[in-house]
Amino acid sequence: MTKLVHGGDIYTAMEKGTAKEEILDYSANINPLGMPEGVKRAIGKVLDDCDHYPDPLCRRLARAVAEKEGVPEERLIFGNGAADLIFRLTAAIKPENALIPAPTFAEYEQALRSAGCGVGIHALCEENGFALGEGFLSELTDDLDLIFLCNPNNPTGQLIERDFLRKVLDICEKKNIFAVVDECFIDFVTDPQAVTVKDWIAEYTRLFILRAFTKNYAMPGLRLGYGICGNRKLLDRLTAAGQPWSVSLLAQEAGVAALKEDAYLEEARQLIFRERKRLVQGLSELGYQVFPPAANYIFFRLPDKNDPAYAARFTEDLAEEGILIRSCANYRGLKTGYFRIAVRGKEENERLLRALNRRERLWQKQL
Amino acid sequence: MTKLVHGGDIYTAMEKGTAKEEILDYSANINPLGMPEGVKRAIGKVLDDCDHYPDPLCRRLARAVAEKEGVPEERLIFGNGAADLIFRLTAAIKPENALIPAPTFAEYEQALRSAGCGVGIHALCEENGFALGEGFLSELTDDLDLIFLCNPNNPTGQLIERDFLRKVLDICEKKNIFAVVDECFIDFVTDPQAVTVKDWIAEYTRLFILRAFTKNYAMPGLRLGYGICGNRKLLDRLTAAGQPWSVSLLAQEAGVAALKEDAYLEEARQLIFRERKRLVQGLSELGYQVFPPAANYIFFRLPDKNDPAYAARFTEDLAEEGILIRSCANYRGLKTGYFRIAVRGKEENERLLRALNRRERLWQKQL
Repeated sequence: MTKLVHGGDIYTAMEKGTAKEEILDYSANINPLGMPEGVKRAIGKVLDDCDHYPDPLCRRLARAVAEKEGVPEERLIFGNGAADLIFRLTAAIKPENALIPAPTFAEYEQALRSAGCGVGIHALCEENGFALGEGFLSELTDDLDLIFLCNPNNPTGQLIERDFLRKVLDICEKKNIFAVVDECFIDFVTDPQAVTVKDWIAEYTRLFILRAFTKNYAMPGLRLGYGICGNRKLLDRLTAAGQPWSVSLLAQEAGVAALKEDAYLEEARQLIFRERKRLVQGLSELGYQVFPPAANYIFFRLPDKNDPAYAARFTEDLAEEGILIRSCANYRGLKTGYFRIAVRGKEENERLLRALNRRERLWQKQL
Repeated sequence: MTKLVHGGDIYTAMEKGTAKEEILDYSANINPLGMPEGVKRAIGKVLDDCDHYPDPLCRRLARAVAEKEGVPEERLIFGNGAADLIFRLTAAIKPENALIPAPTFAEYEQALRSAGCGVGIHALCEENGFALGEGFLSELTDDLDLIFLCNPNNPTGQLIERDFLRKVLDICEKKNIFAVVDECFIDFVTDPQAVTVKDWIAEYTRLFILRAFTKNYAMPGLRLGYGICGNRKLLDRLTAAGQPWSVSLLAQEAGVAALKEDAYLEEARQLIFRERKRLVQGLSELGYQVFPPAANYIFFRLPDKNDPAYAARFTEDLAEEGILIRSCANYRGLKTGYFRIAVRGKEENERLLRALNRRERLWQKQL
C-alpha cells in the first residue's frame, strides 16, 4: 500500500475502528471554525448544475478573487488545491535544477523529483530558529530554474524577512530563476498585508505566488487553490500543462461564497491568536522547545531524554487518545523529536494540553 | 484569454447573457437523466466533513468500484476526472514517442505535447467509417512508449473490433508500449461486457484502462475518474506523479453513492438507445451523413453545398436558439462540416430536430 506521509489522515484511524467523532485532528492546519455555513449553502444550491462541466476559466471565481485581492483577473490561475499547481508548475517549467530549503512542505521536492529535476537542498539552521539567512543568496546560482519558498514556512512557522525576500527575488529576476512563494497560510499571520508579496507581481516576472482556500476557509476536502503571477507566458504554460477542468464546479462556487465570509475569517484569526498563545505557554510549561509560530500551527521539539522511546512514541501515545498530531521526523532536515500541531478551539486545546500533561506524568513515573 | 476548444462550455453563452435555463447543451455527452438524487443526498451528508482532507487512497471508493467491476482494489487508481489521469500518465511515463489515431479525444495529444513527447498520428479513414484498421498494427514500432485508444472513439462513435484490440495489445506487450484504452463511454454501449477489456489486465502488463463517472452518472462538475491496471509499478509511478489529494472528498462520496444507482443507469441506457434511434433517423432525413453511433453521442457530416457558410454557420445558427452542439472542425483529422451531438431526452431531441428542420428550410429558401 502507498505510504501516507502527510498530516490530516483521519482515515487510517477510522479504518482501524476509531469513530470519526472521536478523532481530534491536530495534524492538519485547518481553520478551527470549520467550513462556513455560507459555503455549505452555496454548494447545496449548485448541486443540480453538476451535470455540466465546470468553467475551465473559473470566470466568476476569478472576478471575486481579483476584487478581494486587488489583483487583475488575468493574473490569476486556479487549481485543484495548491498542491495541483505545485505539480503543474514543475510540469510546465520542466526545471533541470531547483533549490528548496529544508525543512519545508514536502510536496515541492516530490513534484520536482517526479519531473526528473535535480533538487538542491538549503539546510535551515536550528540555531537560527530555521530562518532563511544570507547563505541562501549565494546558492542562487545561474544553473537554477526554480525555487520554492514557503512564507510562513511549513512546518517551522518562520516568516521570511521582507527585505531579504526582495534580495532573493532580485537575484531570481536577474538569473532567470522562477521563484514560487507559497502564501497558503497568509490569512493567519498577524498582518497579512505586511507579509504578502502580491503587489510585487508587476515588478518580478519570475515570481509566482501560491494561495489556497484550504486552510483559511477550512475546505481541504473540496480542493481549491490559486496562483498570482504577472507572467502571462508562464500562466499559459501552466494552463497547457494540465486538464481544462481541474477545478470542480462545487469548488468554484465554494470559493465565490467563501470570499464573502469576512466576519468568519476575522473571528477565526482572533481565536487563533488567542489560542496560539495558550498553546505556546502550555507546551513551554511542559518543557518543550517551542519555535515562535507565525500562523495557525505550532512547531516544537521535545527535550532530549535518555530513553529514545520518549520521543519516538509521542504520536502513538496521543493517537491512543484519538489525538492526531504531525510528527515531523520524515521532513528532510529534521529527525525524531520534532512535531507540529494545529491551533484549534479552546476546549480542544485544553483537551490536548491535558493529554500531554498526563503523558509527561506517566513518563516521569517510568523513569 | 485562453481559447476553449471543448464541448460543454455553457459559461461563454452565459457570459453573453443567455440564462442557464435557456441553454440546451448537446455539446457534452452527459447522461440525460442528470445526476442521481442519491448522489446529491450523499454529497449533502458529507459537507460537514469537508474540513478534513480527502483520503489520498480513496479507500471506501476503491472497495465499492472493486466490488462493482470485479477487479481487485489494488488495481485501481483514482483521479480528478479521467482527464487528470491522462496528464498523470504522460507525467509518469515520460514518453518520448507516442502514437494516437485521429480524429480522437483531444486531451491525449495535449497531454503528450505538454510532456514534450513526439506524437505520431494514425489517420483514420472516412471511407472505412473511421474504423481502426490493420494499418495501425504496422505503425506500432519499437520506438513507441505510449498509445491512446478511445473505445468507443470520441467523437466518431466507432468501436474497436475485439480481436483487433487483442492484436494491438499483443504487440504492445512485446514491444514495451503502454496502451491506454479509454472506456469512459463503456456504460452506454449496448453490451459493455463484450467491449471492456478489464478482464485482460492480468494478461497485459502494459494495459491501462481509463474510466470515469462523468458521463454515465452525469457528474462532470464533480470530477471523478479512475484507472484499472495490472501493473503495480505503473500505478506507483502515477501516484508519485501528482498530489496526494487529487480526488475531493465530495467526489469520493459521490462515487460511492453513484455505484448503487443500478436502476438509474439502466433507465438511462434504455432512454439513450431509444432516443439515439430517433436522432439518427431525424438527422438522416435531413440529408446529413450519420456515422453509426455506439454510445450516447452521434457523429455526423453535413452534405457539401455550394455555399461554404452552410456548414461554417451551423453551430452559430443553433447557438442563436440556445442550442450548443460540438463542431468537430478543430479535431485533428477533421474539418468544417463534421459535428457531434449528445443523445438527450425525448422532448429535447424533438426541439433539436425542429430547430434543425427550421434551419434547413431557411437555407433552402436562401438558395
